[in-house]
Amino acid sequence: MAIQMKFKVEKQLVDQEGIGRARAAEFTVPGTFGRPYTVKTPVFMPVGTLGTVKGVTPGELRNMGAQIILGNTYHLYLRPGHARVESFGELHRFMGWHQPILTDSGGFQVFSLAGLNRVDDDGVTFQSHIDGSSHRFTPELSMEIQRALGSDMVMAFDQCPPYPATPEQVQAAMRRTVQWAERGLRVKLKDHQLRFGIVQGGLYESLRVQSAREITALPFDAFAIGGLSIGESPDLMQAMARFTAPLLPQDKPRYLMGVGRPEDLVEGVRAGIDLFDCVMPTRNARNGQLFTSQGKVNIKNARYADSKEPLDPECSCETCTQYTRGYLRHLFVCRELLSARLNTIHNLTYYIRLMTEMREAILSERFEEWVESFYRKRGNDVR
Amino acid sequence: MAIQMKFKVEKQLVDQEGIGRARAAEFTVPGTFGRPYTVKTPVFMPVGTLGTVKGVTPGELRNMGAQIILGNTYHLYLRPGHARVESFGELHRFMGWHQPILTDSGGFQVFSLAGLNRVDDDGVTFQSHIDGSSHRFTPELSMEIQRALGSDMVMAFDQCPPYPATPEQVQAAMRRTVQWAERGLRVKLKDHQLRFGIVQGGLYESLRVQSAREITALPFDAFAIGGLSIGESPDLMQAMARFTAPLLPQDKPRYLMGVGRPEDLVEGVRAGIDLFDCVMPTRNARNGQLFTSQGKVNIKNARYADSKEPLDPECSCETCTQYTRGYLRHLFVCRELLSARLNTIHNLTYYIRLMTEMREAILSERFEEWVESFYRKRGNDVR
Repeated sequence: MAIQMKFKVEKQLVDQEGIGRARAAEFTVPGTFGRPYTVKTPVFMPVGTLGTVKGVTPGELRNMGAQIILGNTYHLYLRPGHARVESFGELHRFMGWHQPILTDSGGFQVFSLAGLNRVDDDGVTFQSHIDGSSHRFTPELSMEIQRALGSDMVMAFDQCPPYPATPEQVQAAMRRTVQWAERGLRVKLKDHQLRFGIVQGGLYESLRVQSAREITALPFDAFAIGGLSIGESPDLMQAMARFTAPLLPQDKPRYLMGVGRPEDLVEGVRAGIDLFDCVMPTRNARNGQLFTSQGKVNIKNARYADSKEPLDPECSCETCTQYTRGYLRHLFVCRELLSARLNTIHNLTYYIRLMTEMREAILSERFEEWVESFYRKRGNDVR
Repeated sequence: MAIQMKFKVEKQLVDQEGIGRARAAEFTVPGTFGRPYTVKTPVFMPVGTLGTVKGVTPGELRNMGAQIILGNTYHLYLRPGHARVESFGELHRFMGWHQPILTDSGGFQVFSLAGLNRVDDDGVTFQSHIDGSSHRFTPELSMEIQRALGSDMVMAFDQCPPYPATPEQVQAAMRRTVQWAERGLRVKLKDHQLRFGIVQGGLYESLRVQSAREITALPFDAFAIGGLSIGESPDLMQAMARFTAPLLPQDKPRYLMGVGRPEDLVEGVRAGIDLFDCVMPTRNARNGQLFTSQGKVNIKNARYADSKEPLDPECSCETCTQYTRGYLRHLFVCRELLSARLNTIHNLTYYIRLMTEMREAILSERFEEWVESFYRKRGNDVR
């Protein structure tokens, strides 16, 4: 049985209806390096799909202030294989990252990325997106893979219904998600591993209530909101996150999976969410879409060709302090390797700093002023 | 007129015929940052085609011990344009590299990379490899571009005949190369810029003698051997470098252009060459071909999938001290961005350390023992 996660809310804001919302907290994971690691929330977790956050090193992630990174169970199962990762001393030592790692369950990729998949009550059969070979995931296998990877935080294997879906489809996926959660909990993990349960329920409030009740009744260390940011509008996503957050326990971390844009993180924190992950900062970096305190910059744009300005004058990352917009544009246009790297360093720094600023604003009880200033500075990007 | 380059031979070995060969030396470039920079030779210059050594930062290059990097006139003329680079404070400030830069003349790329080209006594008309647009390089324009780029070392605009070529073809190119050298010398450069003349002559000893006599009669600060490593066998290349090196002045730096494999650098130093450049360490890194003290490693090979060994146990670079062969193989197989970067850091460190070791061996008068040990350790790679 997993060790109880130590979770401490340092400050929580309460909305007009008396509901606990934005909060600054910390929790401690036992860790695999002989000493526990304390995570300060709200926190953004960069995505390291295949045992690397694309284009940057563990040292750079540390310098940016990254606390936790993600690993993808589906991808690491296919390449290089979870048993191989374990033989290298688990994912931390394999990739040289000595801070917490959260692994997803593989469920989302199995449904969205793999080829033809067939789901039944026992599990999912799917085809590898690499070579079309046939594989089968069950809740038990997902736990075994994550156990081998040795992540600090293990996600339950859930079924995320597509968007849009009928209430009947969502309910069927919810039922399976609860059964799978219970089966996963019966699989022993390593002593240092903590477990996250996942609430589903699509965009139906009544189903979210039901799913939250069923999942939070199970002995998880923390809870995630799944099934959002899969095609619905940002407004709907934000509204459903805001509806669901208070349905999760006050005394455990809350994780909004796969979200999102900077404004989605702001609204998520405002709703009472503690953890976030998204490929957006890293993927957009590779596509030249950069986030700045003044709004978005498409670095490919010819208007930057002669710009001697830093990308974001308010940012202190390597990219903003050492290079100009003109040079960054040149690298992008020439498809130079350094482009993806410098852009990634900036975008991740932006996301991480956003979370730090929100944390400080909550602690000093000026969060709403901070939110107002955030939207004002972004000008046209105001939602 | 260019400032005289300060060049000091610290130690030179003499072969059995009394010819000065391998040497440890240093020379000083005036520099563009208000202070001169002293280069220790023999030295390998990483290639930074488009204002970046592919995949690595200036900071990483400094950490590896890189002293000089190359910039490519042809590429920078096309993108982002030399006038634009100049407006950013020349190439050093544009890319954030505060040590010496050598720029080639553009001649080699115009003949080898550009589309249909037409050469006449005045210059070369060619088509951009990017968009097919028509351009014309003359010796004067090459100097003007390099002047705008602000490199510390400027190469003469030469004609490199293809391999194989008849003596008549080589002679015609030589004649043009001398005329173009003289025309280039009449173009005023910036005060800090030093000039390199280029000896041609193909694989004909008598023509090399003639070209060396004509070119070294001109007031260049240093001399390069061009027209090698363009398709001839390594043995022929090494023999011609060895033949040509002593034809160049003892009291000026000697540069063997575009060479080469580690063993070619060893034989080049042995012949009396001071400077080298080649895309091999960087390009091979991106293709997973890694140079180690025990010989070549093709990191894609399945035999490395489970290897917990460092890439090169004798290397102290970031890649060798922080990652395993198994992880490097995983990154390569998954085409991760980090692969090219870590491989490049290692290969360049290998090349730079090779030069440092040779320099130390020359200074301590045990160069031939070092060479013997170099070939012995590489085992099957012995030429």
